[in-house]
Amino acid sequence: MKFDVMVDVRLRGGIADPAGATIERALPALGYDGVAGVTVGKTVRFAIEATDEAEATRRSEDLSASFLTNPVIEDATVMVTPADGPTGDHA
Amino acid sequence: MKFDVMVDVRLRGGIADPAGATIERALPALGYDGVAGVTVGKTVRFAIEATDEAEATRRSEDLSASFLTNPVIEDATVMVTPADGPTGDHA
Repeated sequence: MKFDVMVDVRLRGGIADPAGATIERALPALGYDGVAGVTVGKTVRFAIEATDEAEATRRSEDLSASFLTNPVIEDATVMVTPADGPTGDHA
Repeated sequence: MKFDVMVDVRLRGGIADPAGATIERALPALGYDGVAGVTVGKTVRFAIEATDEAEATRRSEDLSASFLTNPVIEDATVMVTPADGPTGDHA
């Protein structure tokens, strides 16, 4: 069975986010006031073959912690949906 | 009124994704079989001050299209939630 996985990776609180800070500093000059707390993260999407959703989730979380994120500075949220499910729009 | 905004940016279909391709190629050797279609995207989160949700959405979509994404190669989804709402976990 196929599952669509989205791993949402964000910097942990307190970790410097220079990309976010740069965007935030630039916005007022570009005409966008009232924007604060800009942070930049990354997402990794993939399709995984597994016997059931629990196995897909377990393997995806392992994969995320081992190879996709740096747990020292990043937090990851893993979302697993059946590939034919309502959010199965994986390209 | 404050709103939390998440902009989810993905490469359009057909645009080369070397980061995703590299991850996908490496996984079998690392013990992860059955993973396909790996794509890497980015997220930008921020808080925006606006009079209502419609204004927050309009300004966030403008901002996203003008400065956060490259519409030629990227697709962006903008999600706006009231800062006190259920997903108001913006750090």
